[in-house]
Amino acid sequence: MRKIEHIGIAVRDLEASNALFETLFGQPPYKLEEVASEGVRTSFFRSGPNKIELLEATREDSPIAKYIEKKGEGIHHIAFDVEDIHREIARLKDEGFTVLNETPKKGADGKLVAFLHPKTTNGVLIELCQDAPEE
Amino acid sequence: MRKIEHIGIAVRDLEASNALFETLFGQPPYKLEEVASEGVRTSFFRSGPNKIELLEATREDSPIAKYIEKKGEGIHHIAFDVEDIHREIARLKDEGFTVLNETPKKGADGKLVAFLHPKTTNGVLIELCQDAPEE
Repeated sequence: MRKIEHIGIAVRDLEASNALFETLFGQPPYKLEEVASEGVRTSFFRSGPNKIELLEATREDSPIAKYIEKKGEGIHHIAFDVEDIHREIARLKDEGFTVLNETPKKGADGKLVAFLHPKTTNGVLIELCQDAPEE
Repeated sequence: MRKIEHIGIAVRDLEASNALFETLFGQPPYKLEEVASEGVRTSFFRSGPNKIELLEATREDSPIAKYIEKKGEGIHHIAFDVEDIHREIARLKDEGFTVLNETPKKGADGKLVAFLHPKTTNGVLIELCQDAPEE
């Protein structure tokens, strides 16, 4: 867990939220990206060594649509940068955390990602992320 | 907004959560601090350039007690490091954000802090924080 890689924020309307966060940060998003496998459109803002990811659902069964339905807009997850995601998954599993996907999957922004179940982490959805190797 | 200074996480039982996050991060909290004015006991963990703050309510009317009652344990706020909190408060107020306290107040960990109302920030409670000047 070398740093907070990004914070993911669930939003209803990506364009409106991009405008809002552009005002907040004084700069536009540096990237827009759709992750079809997760049913989300995303945007990324920089804040020094960290990023903010906005996530809008593209379909009703998207995890983001379900989250907003249940809890409203707001902070959805914290992602930590890890050096070796496979080793970290194994370590946390041994420690009793529930890893939602034990095989890392491709996330946005060129990352390999895995999630820990919030039930084992104080209600916080934690993402581990590592730069994906070049193909 | 030079970086994410910390993420605040609302917890029911600080000792239990300290043990959990110590396992997660592989290191104990570097600081325990009570902020009587806010009705919270806190602990701080480092993650590279960032911190994680755990917050437990010490009384029923604490904002953290109210948050947990309404939403359960989980991520409570994001704090951004700012160079000049007075200037940033003025800028964001001009831009239409609702600043909850226009005069910065003393927060945990030697900071001057101000909060933006989540209604103007996509449901996200945002804290601005600046190192408090020496007295």
